[in-house]
Amino acid sequence: MKESILFWPVRLEGDTLYILDETKIPGKVAYLKVRDYLQAIDAVVSMKTRAFGQFLTVCYAFILETQKSRDRTKEELMGILKKVAEAFNNSRPTFPFAEVTGMVLGIAQKVYGSPAFPGNFIRAMEGMLKGIRQQRHDRASRAAGLLKDGDSVLTHCHVSGEMSLIGEFCRRDAKKVKFFATETRPYFQGARLTAWELKRDGFDVTLIPDNAVAKVMAEGNINCVIVGSDRSAKNGDFANKIGTYQIALLAKHFGIPFYVLVQPSDKLKSGADIPIEIRDDDEILAYDGKRLAPKGCAAYYPGFDVVSNELVTKHIAINAN
Amino acid sequence: MKESILFWPVRLEGDTLYILDETKIPGKVAYLKVRDYLQAIDAVVSMKTRAFGQFLTVCYAFILETQKSRDRTKEELMGILKKVAEAFNNSRPTFPFAEVTGMVLGIAQKVYGSPAFPGNFIRAMEGMLKGIRQQRHDRASRAAGLLKDGDSVLTHCHVSGEMSLIGEFCRRDAKKVKFFATETRPYFQGARLTAWELKRDGFDVTLIPDNAVAKVMAEGNINCVIVGSDRSAKNGDFANKIGTYQIALLAKHFGIPFYVLVQPSDKLKSGADIPIEIRDDDEILAYDGKRLAPKGCAAYYPGFDVVSNELVTKHIAINAN
Repeated sequence: MKESILFWPVRLEGDTLYILDETKIPGKVAYLKVRDYLQAIDAVVSMKTRAFGQFLTVCYAFILETQKSRDRTKEELMGILKKVAEAFNNSRPTFPFAEVTGMVLGIAQKVYGSPAFPGNFIRAMEGMLKGIRQQRHDRASRAAGLLKDGDSVLTHCHVSGEMSLIGEFCRRDAKKVKFFATETRPYFQGARLTAWELKRDGFDVTLIPDNAVAKVMAEGNINCVIVGSDRSAKNGDFANKIGTYQIALLAKHFGIPFYVLVQPSDKLKSGADIPIEIRDDDEILAYDGKRLAPKGCAAYYPGFDVVSNELVTKHIAINAN
Repeated sequence: MKESILFWPVRLEGDTLYILDETKIPGKVAYLKVRDYLQAIDAVVSMKTRAFGQFLTVCYAFILETQKSRDRTKEELMGILKKVAEAFNNSRPTFPFAEVTGMVLGIAQKVYGSPAFPGNFIRAMEGMLKGIRQQRHDRASRAAGLLKDGDSVLTHCHVSGEMSLIGEFCRRDAKKVKFFATETRPYFQGARLTAWELKRDGFDVTLIPDNAVAKVMAEGNINCVIVGSDRSAKNGDFANKIGTYQIALLAKHFGIPFYVLVQPSDKLKSGADIPIEIRDDDEILAYDGKRLAPKGCAAYYPGFDVVSNELVTKHIAINAN
């Protein structure tokens, strides 16, 4: 099934990690060239990559550092991998870096005893990523299965190319679906990424201000909501881009099914355990160098909010059979 | 009581109407110089002035055209006034231009028979505006009366200087209140006008993305919502800047009192009769010349939405005793 270029926004070629700079879209499609894990962390902190791109950046950064360390001893390499893990774990709060790096270190430890290390570690990582690619296709296919011909789907922020893939599965099954994308202030991921991607891939997409959600729902123009999840908890609560919570409340008010694409998480009991990143005031006080509000004005910009389990009609999990 | 400069953003000096260009704030405080009603309509259509500024622009444009027509006969002047009325009525849909121009023509017709016409018309208009200024002070005072020491007020868009006046009345009564202002995409009136005004006048104001309303409400940080109304109906429904409706729904969900500053309206039966202006797609597809979404992408940007009466805890009317 055809993938949007946002579906797998990071790739490793030789000793260079190419990270799609999502802040440059829709102006241009440009990749950051990253040579080590510190540059990779910069890309994460400055939000040049996000969501699934962050996951890929972590995974490939481990492979990159392993490739660069072929002359080191096994012990030295494990020390480097642990240092990389710790640096990512301290980069941004809401995304579960510790879970991802923990999983990667687990893979390394499992194959560490073999004389094939670290080549076997790299192969194991590549195999894991291949499996995730397939699982994301499966998840998109199941999400598409929830849609009927003629449905309109509202989405918020950006689900790393998966909305376009959902559209492709609908197309395969001759179901015509329409998309409504919220702008998603303050980074405009909905405008810059989701609307851009869906239009580029030939889908019917309408951009709306975040403020117009209740109105389009009241007008009967939305059949379901599909959003992603930046972090999930055991009880079905999840955190996603700020604004997801109010969309979930409004969907409930209007009786509109609310679906979320989730990844497995067994580390956190409930949404209350998910740390929420508070971003810098200036990210909403100015846009693209232009001041929107006076200097020194206080701002409150939580990057994410938590949606509780009971607002979710169906969790579409990546690891479901 | 001290007024914010946004409270009365239009003034007439000699043959020139000075209209505060609200699109230039917070960068600078600049006034458009308007010499006739056509230029005044341009300022309205391009949203350089809005809400109460539109009302003042209409009223002063009539005075301006009357002053310029002293050499005309009474009949000619009435013809001009009718032409001015019609042009405003066709300028933007949601604001009740026809009600305002109808009221003004009513004043003109009432004093038309006197030999003092049109001087008496100008004096009657000035008296009417003076009365409205006093009524808005009264309304702000009553709104302030609903607040307790320590309260936090969430507001959306901009109520033409009245939020700052509400703050001044609280200050007079030694009540400390805090304000939360939504950004109000796509024109950022909350950032550019409300936050700017409240900070300038020394109040504690925090700007939040439109997407963070549910989160700040859930965190218990909002004691009440106060918004304005662009148009009201007999049954208590009202239209205001897009996003007001979902804030009202969220306030109800969280049990937070929702207050609206309304003007009288007996022309429309209910909110369903209020025409909603659909603004141009490009107003959300680009910002300040920078493209946010791909060219040709569809957008839906209704400028306003309607809040039904039952979501309103209290209407704070301009003409109440």
